[in-house]
Amino acid sequence: MKAAVLREFKSPLQIVEFPQPDLGDGEVLVRITAAGVCGSDVHMWLGEDPRTPLPMILGHEGVGVIEEIGGKGPRFDLYGRELKPGDPVIWDRAVVCGMCYFCAVKRLPNLCRSRWVYGIHRSCSDPPHLNGCYADHILLVSNTKIISIVDWPDLDPAALVSAGCSGATAANAIELSGIEIGDSVLIQGAGPLGLYLVGYARTRGAEHVIVIEGVQSRMELARRLGADLVLDFTSTTPEERKEAVMSLTHGRGADVGFEAVGRPEPVVEGIDLLRRGGTYVIVGTAVPMGTIPIDFYYQIVLKQLRLQGAWTNDTRHIVQALSIVRRNAKVFSDMVTHRFGLDQANEALRSMAEREAIKAAIVSSTHA
Amino acid sequence: MKAAVLREFKSPLQIVEFPQPDLGDGEVLVRITAAGVCGSDVHMWLGEDPRTPLPMILGHEGVGVIEEIGGKGPRFDLYGRELKPGDPVIWDRAVVCGMCYFCAVKRLPNLCRSRWVYGIHRSCSDPPHLNGCYADHILLVSNTKIISIVDWPDLDPAALVSAGCSGATAANAIELSGIEIGDSVLIQGAGPLGLYLVGYARTRGAEHVIVIEGVQSRMELARRLGADLVLDFTSTTPEERKEAVMSLTHGRGADVGFEAVGRPEPVVEGIDLLRRGGTYVIVGTAVPMGTIPIDFYYQIVLKQLRLQGAWTNDTRHIVQALSIVRRNAKVFSDMVTHRFGLDQANEALRSMAEREAIKAAIVSSTHA
Amino acid sequence: MKAAVLREFKSPLQIVEFPQPDLGDGEVLVRITAAGVCGSDVHMWLGEDPRTPLPMILGHEGVGVIEEIGGKGPRFDLYGRELKPGDPVIWDRAVVCGMCYFCAVKRLPNLCRSRWVYGIHRSCSDPPHLNGCYADHILLVSNTKIISIVDWPDLDPAALVSAGCSGATAANAIELSGIEIGDSVLIQGAGPLGLYLVGYARTRGAEHVIVIEGVQSRMELARRLGADLVLDFTSTTPEERKEAVMSLTHGRGADVGFEAVGRPEPVVEGIDLLRRGGTYVIVGTAVPMGTIPIDFYYQIVLKQLRLQGAWTNDTRHIVQALSIVRRNAKVFSDMVTHRFGLDQANEALRSMAEREAIKAAIVSSTHA
Amino acid sequence: MKAAVLREFKSPLQIVEFPQPDLGDGEVLVRITAAGVCGSDVHMWLGEDPRTPLPMILGHEGVGVIEEIGGKGPRFDLYGRELKPGDPVIWDRAVVCGMCYFCAVKRLPNLCRSRWVYGIHRSCSDPPHLNGCYADHILLVSNTKIISIVDWPDLDPAALVSAGCSGATAANAIELSGIEIGDSVLIQGAGPLGLYLVGYARTRGAEHVIVIEGVQSRMELARRLGADLVLDFTSTTPEERKEAVMSLTHGRGADVGFEAVGRPEPVVEGIDLLRRGGTYVIVGTAVPMGTIPIDFYYQIVLKQLRLQGAWTNDTRHIVQALSIVRRNAKVFSDMVTHRFGLDQANEALRSMAEREAIKAAIVSSTHA
Repeated sequence: MKAAVLREFKSPLQIVEFPQPDLGDGEVLVRITAAGVCGSDVHMWLGEDPRTPLPMILGHEGVGVIEEIGGKGPRFDLYGRELKPGDPVIWDRAVVCGMCYFCAVKRLPNLCRSRWVYGIHRSCSDPPHLNGCYADHILLVSNTKIISIVDWPDLDPAALVSAGCSGATAANAIELSGIEIGDSVLIQGAGPLGLYLVGYARTRGAEHVIVIEGVQSRMELARRLGADLVLDFTSTTPEERKEAVMSLTHGRGADVGFEAVGRPEPVVEGIDLLRRGGTYVIVGTAVPMGTIPIDFYYQIVLKQLRLQGAWTNDTRHIVQALSIVRRNAKVFSDMVTHRFGLDQANEALRSMAEREAIKAAIVSSTHA
Repeated sequence: MKAAVLREFKSPLQIVEFPQPDLGDGEVLVRITAAGVCGSDVHMWLGEDPRTPLPMILGHEGVGVIEEIGGKGPRFDLYGRELKPGDPVIWDRAVVCGMCYFCAVKRLPNLCRSRWVYGIHRSCSDPPHLNGCYADHILLVSNTKIISIVDWPDLDPAALVSAGCSGATAANAIELSGIEIGDSVLIQGAGPLGLYLVGYARTRGAEHVIVIEGVQSRMELARRLGADLVLDFTSTTPEERKEAVMSLTHGRGADVGFEAVGRPEPVVEGIDLLRRGGTYVIVGTAVPMGTIPIDFYYQIVLKQLRLQGAWTNDTRHIVQALSIVRRNAKVFSDMVTHRFGLDQANEALRSMAEREAIKAAIVSSTHA
Repeated sequence: MKAAVLREFKSPLQIVEFPQPDLGDGEVLVRITAAGVCGSDVHMWLGEDPRTPLPMILGHEGVGVIEEIGGKGPRFDLYGRELKPGDPVIWDRAVVCGMCYFCAVKRLPNLCRSRWVYGIHRSCSDPPHLNGCYADHILLVSNTKIISIVDWPDLDPAALVSAGCSGATAANAIELSGIEIGDSVLIQGAGPLGLYLVGYARTRGAEHVIVIEGVQSRMELARRLGADLVLDFTSTTPEERKEAVMSLTHGRGADVGFEAVGRPEPVVEGIDLLRRGGTYVIVGTAVPMGTIPIDFYYQIVLKQLRLQGAWTNDTRHIVQALSIVRRNAKVFSDMVTHRFGLDQANEALRSMAEREAIKAAIVSSTHA
Repeated sequence: MKAAVLREFKSPLQIVEFPQPDLGDGEVLVRITAAGVCGSDVHMWLGEDPRTPLPMILGHEGVGVIEEIGGKGPRFDLYGRELKPGDPVIWDRAVVCGMCYFCAVKRLPNLCRSRWVYGIHRSCSDPPHLNGCYADHILLVSNTKIISIVDWPDLDPAALVSAGCSGATAANAIELSGIEIGDSVLIQGAGPLGLYLVGYARTRGAEHVIVIEGVQSRMELARRLGADLVLDFTSTTPEERKEAVMSLTHGRGADVGFEAVGRPEPVVEGIDLLRRGGTYVIVGTAVPMGTIPIDFYYQIVLKQLRLQGAWTNDTRHIVQALSIVRRNAKVFSDMVTHRFGLDQANEALRSMAEREAIKAAIVSSTHA
């Protein structure tokens, strides 16, 4: 069993062989068909993410086919279907305790103190080693939530991988935003996160979906997912953008907005483009980025603004992301602009680091 | 009919005589029994509030007795009771259009663009003049929402006045906070707004109500309303307060917090004392106060914090405020530490400006 | 000014001439371009609806063009746009007080005790007479909420009329249902109400939309709006339908269901097809229909079912209905299978009474 | 280790000795200090509950002290506190999978298909035998959610046991009801479930709490918990009760109602006493009781009623129940009118079967 291992920050990943693991009760060995390359992987590779436990196998987004199931008892998927070898599956990248205040009382398992994520929190130095998706196999522990995708045989696995991470995170942001039918929705940034937000905004009945972005290929995907006002920040002034948004919303501003850029600077413009009583969700800023001055009277209180942070997601959001990918299969497949084999993992990381790809994936030869 | 008129900023109010008005259909003439002196009145008197249209009658908080009802048709209160002269009443200080996007679609009449408030937005230079509560009479226009308080003959009118302003604003903040039974709630500041928040937090089932305040008499009222951890910021360090809050909440922080100080500086401490996934409502900052730097990654996103502004209130919140005053009548009566006659209006303002009073009221001789 | 007047139950409507009214402040005279013929109109014509105040002008669904605006002041639409003669408009068929417990506290203006509806509650015997849509003109009173549709010049007025009644009622039902992204949704009946529900279910992110209906043309429209499982109750058994639903939902049943048939009998099947913890909204049963036995243990408690009645709608739901019509303009235009001139009003009623039309409309010659 | 075992329906329980179990990783052996005798236990004893797997140890409500913890790793409580022998604890009587559609997507673990409850679903014939609370010890499996009550040393264990069952079920019903501050709340029945509902209604800010009951001692407890209108159905007519409720609510009816009687017959009166747009929660009917005819037009649609079933509860509701017991410790202690030793288990059952006790508990000699 092979995996691309990160041994040293900023150095190339190396292909390492691991022994076939013995499976405990409820454990599932999956052959990976597609692994997503996330922007966070780049941060980890660069050593910018303090969680990174070297040596490790990167990759928290994966889709695969079950090879073996441990134990005698049946192993079920989220819908109660008995899993068996050969089933194509996706899974919740996060494992949570289910028994703490966050899991059991506040129903926020994304904030569970024991939460750990494949490809992020655990080193591969200890058995069973195979805990990341930049690999040909991964071992899913017994309390991993698995979803069979056997109903959707034609779906491109590479289009699905992002459902487990940016798609699910976007779904959490959407749920926290409380979008209503007829709302005007502003989305700043049209990377994978922003594109999912466009799709969800339409899916929840937005009247207008306004996107601010600077890269043509991303703008084009946003339009295909239903954005009806796409503002190019490289060729418009803030004043022009404000006029465009106010004109579309009869002078009141957008009802709901999302920061999906990855930096907090757009927050000031985002708040300015929202109506009083609106909700602004900050979901793109996934690493420390310093402070932004906020005028609490004018920007928050007088405006009765809701400023909401969104951190990762719950299992429910993965289900929602799968639904939206299925309904927009071609667009999400086209979003994966770069595909590589496992032995090209370094090249895959580079394509994301240099923002050459909108989304890159490592695919097994069968699906390359 | 007499009123205390503000003609010039920072100069004494002057008692002016106005003619008895002719009442149009649905208009109601009320003899005022108690008028609240709000912190905003001080800002208006000082000329710090840009809305102030001189000359004007201050006073947006009032309770009174109906003297006359205009028109032939019946005039009903909020509960469908026919009003008649002699009925003691309170009313919604705000008049809204009921027909705009904010009123009719988003159900946020507090953000109605046509909203105006007795004692704040209108000058007394035009008929019918009597549009503020620092007066012996007020004329309520036909679309003013009136609530009869005939069921509660023993309630101190001075205890009730704040229900129409700070009590209702606090109710809006509480609704926006989404408090659940068993939550730990942090309240910064125990002026009228903060004291109402203490009462509501208990009323919504808070397990712990934590108050940070520096004035002993306010702390005492907070305790009487149900605060079980009162931290004196004049004698504790931020570290000591954090330790106290974390100890009470098993190390996770408060579930919900409120800024009720009137300045945004406490926001940083407030956020720090909240748990991940918590909600922090900013409700006290009612005038411009400059900016505060916010670290969006650590304070908002990673924490999945909801930072919510609350601006004034809706009619529903007045009903809720009346309910809480009724159940805590003695405490809210004691909160009105200073009472004056109409001819002492300047002294009343001074008692609030110098923070001598927790709450001051102008009461008619009958109730003084 | 002409209108088709109902003088006697079950007798033909008669065209009557009325004088041009003098407009009071804020009143608006509208030339009607399209009036919807609702199933309720048939009930009123038959004398089955106790509200019917003879003589009267039927028609509570209308779209038109402003001819005149009363008073000197500006008259605004819901979005704050100043209205002027020549503007195409739609309006909230219901007039409410905005000041009672239901309007101002519980935010349920659809339950306002003073609520009255054009074409339903008022006789045409008193001035200004013109209070129904089966007419060439209607007079909108000053507190009627008006929405300009000037942005959508190409929309078929006949497609829009239902947005103000069945479309808005369906939006209320959808809001009460709490549909989430990924839900499986059951809709019983594909008349105008059911077709709107199909559209909304898709608009709110339903994974599966299941329709039970017996008329081919209605089934076809349901499919065009996004239904992915359409069950013909004339050619399937309840057992077959249950198997189909359970198969699609991995054995658990639909998450949300709607009775849009107009009779309560389907309730039993509907509940049976829902999962535990589901929500079932009864929205089609608009006239008394007798009782249905309910087993509270098995159907409600053990199932933790939410059984929700939905009665008419609020202004917000009209906005939502307009949004969905605009996005599905051709389908909703095709839903209006029968169109008539004002002098054919009796024929229009007949086409609905005999269920020959899915939806009939009375259109002015310009748009016929 | 001793337990009272049900071997044959309607026959006396017998005290049986079981071997001390070996504890697996995360398993906890608890010495029971108090076990609640629930109405469901009587149904099981009579053979009326189809779930009952003979032979079995009854008792799903318990409080105790940890004697031993299995495995080497630390075992935490819900709040992340490390548990140790000697800690007084309560626990979630239900064990759920945490990984299915109901647990992980819809956040309704009370509807988890794998859910099982101590003292209800499992026979005691297989090891580790000790799975019910009518015993001196119980073995809690590793995924049982445990809550330390070490902070509340003075709380009567017998007062706490019902928090884990009827108190938590009532909390679920309250959450599903959406009570708002100022609401008028109707509660039919003042057994343990109804009494908790009274407490919660007050805790959530009800303006009026109306109770219908026939037993004086229960009425008295309802009053002590805050009911302000208690109607004795043995001495009032339905008309008198309706007049009383309408008078209190200005003619509109209660905002929220609860069936906590255990039979569906009161549903008809309950619905009649609610206002339009109200919510009626059926929570008391815990065993099959036949059907009740419902008029969907008048009782559900025209009224826009929400009729909501409530089935058992989630962990969050136990936390809420503990909070309310703590704040009303004396009343909930007095609610336990009958206390017995383990060898008097049959007498305890009888006291409940004959409705002699409001609530009975089996207490260890230390606490008897």
